[in-house]
Amino acid sequence: MVPFGTGTGLEGGVNAVQGGVCFDLSRMDAIAELSLEDFSVTVEPGVTRKALNKHLRGTGLWFPVDPGADASLCGMAATGASGTNAVRYGTMRPNVLNLRVVLPDGRLLHTAGPGRQPRKRAAGYDLTSLFVGSEGTLGFLTQATLRLHPLPEATAATIASFPSVGAAVACTVQVLQAAVPVARIEFLDEVMADACCRFSGMGLPVAATLLLELHGSRHSLAEQQQQTQEIVQQNGGSSLAWAEGQEEREQLWSMRHNAWYAALALRPGCQGYSTDVCVPISRLPDVVVETKKDLQASGLTAPMVGHVGDGNFHCIIIFNSQDPEEVQRVHAFTQRLGRRALAAGGTCTGEHGVGLGKRALLQEELGQEGLDTLRSIKAALDPHNLMNPGKVL
Amino acid sequence: MVPFGTGTGLEGGVNAVQGGVCFDLSRMDAIAELSLEDFSVTVEPGVTRKALNKHLRGTGLWFPVDPGADASLCGMAATGASGTNAVRYGTMRPNVLNLRVVLPDGRLLHTAGPGRQPRKRAAGYDLTSLFVGSEGTLGFLTQATLRLHPLPEATAATIASFPSVGAAVACTVQVLQAAVPVARIEFLDEVMADACCRFSGMGLPVAATLLLELHGSRHSLAEQQQQTQEIVQQNGGSSLAWAEGQEEREQLWSMRHNAWYAALALRPGCQGYSTDVCVPISRLPDVVVETKKDLQASGLTAPMVGHVGDGNFHCIIIFNSQDPEEVQRVHAFTQRLGRRALAAGGTCTGEHGVGLGKRALLQEELGQEGLDTLRSIKAALDPHNLMNPGKVL
Ligand SMILES: Cc1cc2nc3c(=O)[nH]c(=O)nc-3n(C[C@H](O)[C@H](O)[C@H](O)COP(=O)(O)OP(=O)(O)OC[C@H]3O[C@@H](n4cnc5c(N)ncnc54)[C@H](O)[C@@H]3O)c2cc1C
Ligand SMILES: Cc1cc2nc3c(=O)[nH]c(=O)nc-3n(C[C@H](O)[C@H](O)[C@H](O)COP(=O)(O)OP(=O)(O)OC[C@H]3O[C@@H](n4cnc5c(N)ncnc54)[C@H](O)[C@@H]3O)c2cc1C
Repeated sequence: MVPFGTGTGLEGGVNAVQGGVCFDLSRMDAIAELSLEDFSVTVEPGVTRKALNKHLRGTGLWFPVDPGADASLCGMAATGASGTNAVRYGTMRPNVLNLRVVLPDGRLLHTAGPGRQPRKRAAGYDLTSLFVGSEGTLGFLTQATLRLHPLPEATAATIASFPSVGAAVACTVQVLQAAVPVARIEFLDEVMADACCRFSGMGLPVAATLLLELHGSRHSLAEQQQQTQEIVQQNGGSSLAWAEGQEEREQLWSMRHNAWYAALALRPGCQGYSTDVCVPISRLPDVVVETKKDLQASGLTAPMVGHVGDGNFHCIIIFNSQDPEEVQRVHAFTQRLGRRALAAGGTCTGEHGVGLGKRALLQEELGQEGLDTLRSIKAALDPHNLMNPGKVL
Repeated sequence: MVPFGTGTGLEGGVNAVQGGVCFDLSRMDAIAELSLEDFSVTVEPGVTRKALNKHLRGTGLWFPVDPGADASLCGMAATGASGTNAVRYGTMRPNVLNLRVVLPDGRLLHTAGPGRQPRKRAAGYDLTSLFVGSEGTLGFLTQATLRLHPLPEATAATIASFPSVGAAVACTVQVLQAAVPVARIEFLDEVMADACCRFSGMGLPVAATLLLELHGSRHSLAEQQQQTQEIVQQNGGSSLAWAEGQEEREQLWSMRHNAWYAALALRPGCQGYSTDVCVPISRLPDVVVETKKDLQASGLTAPMVGHVGDGNFHCIIIFNSQDPEEVQRVHAFTQRLGRRALAAGGTCTGEHGVGLGKRALLQEELGQEGLDTLRSIKAALDPHNLMNPGKVL
């Protein structure tokens, strides 16, 4: 049994590799309960993040987790998604309060108990966190109770260009260390910046680039802007023009959200694959710079983008899937990249999940004891391996 | 096998109810790795929260989770502790990056893989969150890698008195809804305020009271103070004098942290038991007011304190454990309170854990499917029920 949300997952999670039945949940699309006082909402699997935020318009609240794609919220819970706002608002995990799950044997589980949604709990093992990121291998998520956030009073976004990849990443690390409560801090390497410009018709320098967004009261925003500006300048970044109007900001972020399509447009007819490592912030500059070198040596087309505020970045590899030699080079590169992240104390997947492709790296990441522990949990909750077989483990 | 941290747990977690061996881990007290750049540190089970914060002095970083007691950090992870700062910085769960666990069969598990500490991960089921709050029933936590936070540039704390319990709680709800990023918002009912004053020699009105702390840059602090002040006044609260110096603030918080002892001093020779429910914020005013009435009708001595920013509050019941009739009244009250919280969509324990005393309520909270799921996880990871038998499940 393979649960299907909106099919935007990037690790083959919905592929029925062993046959079976794929359950499209998109028509269960009720927004069941909205509590403005508790900042919470309960949604069914067919509700996407954009549909939810549209529903919330005018309430002063929003759901910030934003993987770019208009994914289903239950699918996002299933993959433990994050995206551009996670540096400030967290990933799916801290933003899910309760899940209704159809277990493999048909029983109905509420991970925090039926109808409950306290802000914190210490009542038994944390089943909610166990099902977030379980990628359809432990049960069907048929309802998610989510934590909403107050819309910021004021928002400002900007783009800064840097003399080098290292300088852009160093700037990121310093912004975090200065405790600027940045809402978004996204990196594009010069290949990606160029591709995005061409795709979106924006005029940006062909350079390592940061896209930043700040949220706060009007007062605190001015202070954050000043701090950010200073750190950008110290790292040789271009001086900043701030987009404060909604339209201007949307233009900026739609450029970022189209990065995937902009990358695909670099080699029409080719396929894309997005890597997804995440490392401790202190190791990010080295790992990014080494990866750039590796890419150049590999001769692959692979613009880089990153949620660098979390130490998370992607290489969007554009390759000819008909060319076995190139496919082989892609595979060898992704393995090297995964191992480089592991060697730096990081993970082989910050947000896309394990799915089909990352199973070998998962073993290296967790070690035998870790993998055995995952397997014993899977066996306990799905003893006949009915749910999404062949994924994660 | 019963792991013992510092024995400050409030639900009998370290009692060897079935005999066995109790492991005192306090002499494993190394602070193994501190990374100022990554805002992270790795500690052994003997390191307490105060010892860690002392170690961090001068680094600009701190570990904010603060259950009042100077508990071991691994014990805090084991119970999923939180306390006064959780409304801003979260509970233990989002602040633990990795755990080294000795499994019941002696194997060593690193919940996020050996030596790893990325800020986010989507690599397999979240073992870290599973072991946080496992109360010694799944293994020994022998090392915890924790997330540190930058010390705020400026801090201000204050006390406000209110005409009624309802007004103090309504004020809390409004502060949250106005998105003031309050760092601490603690409630004392008039009985607790009175007891704390007498115990600490501070002169406070005998009234429902809020203790608030704000963190931020100097700039943003002034703004937060103004917002808070307005909301306090709208709810009939006394006007605020702000304590900004460290000594003054420490005096205020030591009064709050001594609430347990101040309550005990109300009836010398008696015992204390702290209830620990947590409900959705919108239900907090009703639940607190009903609980006050229930207490009065029960004739129990039980001052109330609460981390009300999370919807979490405690009644510190002071009772004569030699008097079976009074013990019976305490038990009946705590059951009613637990059920009241459950009926309001809350939990029977926001932070103290299940231990021995909350097992029956846990079943009501999760339902049979939830409890079965917890049991199957326990059976998978500890098939011979060697770890802390008789607790949680
Ligand atoms: C252009 C683009 C950009 C992206 N950028 C990001 C990013 O920045 N950050 C990020 O985190 N992700 C990103 N993604 C990936 C992505 O959107 C997700 O992985 C998403 O969270 C999956 O949601 P879905 O509804 O599409 O799930 P699907 O793709 O349908 O399924 C994904 C997995 O979850 C399981 N699943 C889905 N729904 C359920 C359910 N109801 N119950 C149980 N299991 C279920 C499936 O079985 C499968 O294993 C991007 C994707 C695209 C196409
Ligand atoms: C005055 C007072 C006020 C308090 N206020 C709060 C509060 O505001 N918020 C809050 O959350 N708590 C509060 N507590 C409770 C408290 O401090 C905790 O529950 C604490 O987190 C437990 O830590 P410990 O090291 O003392 O653990 P112990 O009491 O030694 O053990 C508690 C449980 O954890 C297990 N355990 C301990 N160490 C390990 C380990 N290394 N590996 C595996 N299992 C382990 C034990 O087996 C037991 O089940 C308060 C306690 C007191 C006395």
